[in-house]
Amino acid sequence: MSSAALAPSWERIERPLVQIAADIDRLFDQVLPVPDDPSALLLEAMRYAAIGGGKRLRPLLATASADLFGVPRSMSLRAGLAVECVHVHSLIHDDLPCMDDDDLRRGKPTVHVAFDEATAVLAGDSLLALAFEILCHPDTHPKAEVRSELTKDLARAAGAHGMAGGQMLDLLPMQQPVDLESIARLQRLKTGAIIGWAVEAGAILGAATTEDRTSLRGYAQNLGLAFQIADDLLDCTGDPEKAGKRLRKDSEHGKETFVTLLGEKRARVQAEMLVEQAIEHLRPFERASAIFEALARFAIARDH
Amino acid sequence: MSSAALAPSWERIERPLVQIAADIDRLFDQVLPVPDDPSALLLEAMRYAAIGGGKRLRPLLATASADLFGVPRSMSLRAGLAVECVHVHSLIHDDLPCMDDDDLRRGKPTVHVAFDEATAVLAGDSLLALAFEILCHPDTHPKAEVRSELTKDLARAAGAHGMAGGQMLDLLPMQQPVDLESIARLQRLKTGAIIGWAVEAGAILGAATTEDRTSLRGYAQNLGLAFQIADDLLDCTGDPEKAGKRLRKDSEHGKETFVTLLGEKRARVQAEMLVEQAIEHLRPFERASAIFEALARFAIARDH
Repeated sequence: MSSAALAPSWERIERPLVQIAADIDRLFDQVLPVPDDPSALLLEAMRYAAIGGGKRLRPLLATASADLFGVPRSMSLRAGLAVECVHVHSLIHDDLPCMDDDDLRRGKPTVHVAFDEATAVLAGDSLLALAFEILCHPDTHPKAEVRSELTKDLARAAGAHGMAGGQMLDLLPMQQPVDLESIARLQRLKTGAIIGWAVEAGAILGAATTEDRTSLRGYAQNLGLAFQIADDLLDCTGDPEKAGKRLRKDSEHGKETFVTLLGEKRARVQAEMLVEQAIEHLRPFERASAIFEALARFAIARDH
Repeated sequence: MSSAALAPSWERIERPLVQIAADIDRLFDQVLPVPDDPSALLLEAMRYAAIGGGKRLRPLLATASADLFGVPRSMSLRAGLAVECVHVHSLIHDDLPCMDDDDLRRGKPTVHVAFDEATAVLAGDSLLALAFEILCHPDTHPKAEVRSELTKDLARAAGAHGMAGGQMLDLLPMQQPVDLESIARLQRLKTGAIIGWAVEAGAILGAATTEDRTSLRGYAQNLGLAFQIADDLLDCTGDPEKAGKRLRKDSEHGKETFVTLLGEKRARVQAEMLVEQAIEHLRPFERASAIFEALARFAIARDH
């Protein structure tokens, strides 16, 4: 995407992105105090992975969605923190030698390189558990019914019928999906389930109507796919230094992606179309959803 | 422990152990259906690890504790299932080559041997997430407040300030604890936190008084330590074939344990003393706690 087309979205989204990054860093700092004993190493590894990196798109989705329903920011930030715990957990485990075997993430050595593999396994596990501890704390919402629903849905989205199931599909070389539908299914699990939760979290916190939740779910589904196509494009055309991680992994592994199947140009058109469809789902929310619209456009302009 | 001393406890505990094993297997079968698609492999790995093995002591603790307060078995079994999910998750990850590197567990090849390492990582992750999905389902308890409390406490017990923190301490060769107090602290985190949750879960489900919860916590603390000493004794004197896992690991790694520090005989005496103390905490519950008493005696008679 050209920088001219990017400019207006970037202006609208820059401040929220800077703000959410600062908020999430501050909250991680609070929930991950380093004890004065030998187990400090585990907390240090968790902090290393969690603080000071990433675009925090999932927390931004959670807070933006909560804002539509007037939810206090102190609550929606906790939902954002929980979903980022799950995301960072998945990155740490995904980077392990037995998984994607990556040594660079968010511009610095991955956790198993900076610490060791065992610490990386435990730091990932601990962040996953922390997500649910955060959600079930009364500070997240005074109504236990809301906390319980958020937790059940996030646990489902993280597990075998969501993210972990998608990671499993992604690891099966012999059964690699070769058509668009299979790839879309894989991505709906691997990244879509968690993005979907982030968007719906605001609706759950704000006791939204079924109609509003359906609209937001439609937005999240289109955004998730657009986001994945942008990621595939980044992998095949991006600058590794800017991205802060290893690229060209798909082609190295001879993996079929949206880009190999559609070609670069059609993949870009497809991503833009999905963003327009995502934005279409926001009609019921009118002006309040400007940040959501900007975020969708920003998500596919990821040559930064 | 001699088989004569074991006999009376065994009679009282045999039926509940057989029953809980059947119940937990049945519930795992229900919550882990294998889908008809490539991601089936992940569910198969989870089933492989979860079904048909283990003594199910943690679920038995949860249901026994719930029975004290008249909680329907359908609810307490779900709490038992959740804690067993966390336990199996920890076994799968603990057995990984980068952790304890074990190839035998519950009498069969470990998950990363029977499948592969990546599948073992994801199966462990998915079981951890599943624990919280189970707890937050309305079938676990009609009151969301109860579900939320169970979840928050289990997440804390599983994470960096509980089990994972203890595993971390256990992996630090240079800072290996060398006195009884350090070893006790490690074990309170590594196994004690989850055992403590299992025992308290029944009290939470049954809206127990603070006094009753305190009594149960005391029981769990003593039981957890006794259990660990029994495990150390098993490692150094047990029969690997009967145990269904590799033994003599502590001595191979030159690791200090209750047994190396106290000697075998004093360690046995210590375990028996802890069991008596554990049982002492059960006084308020009178006859209803017979199973708890038998379970404590059974826990240290683990040459089976």
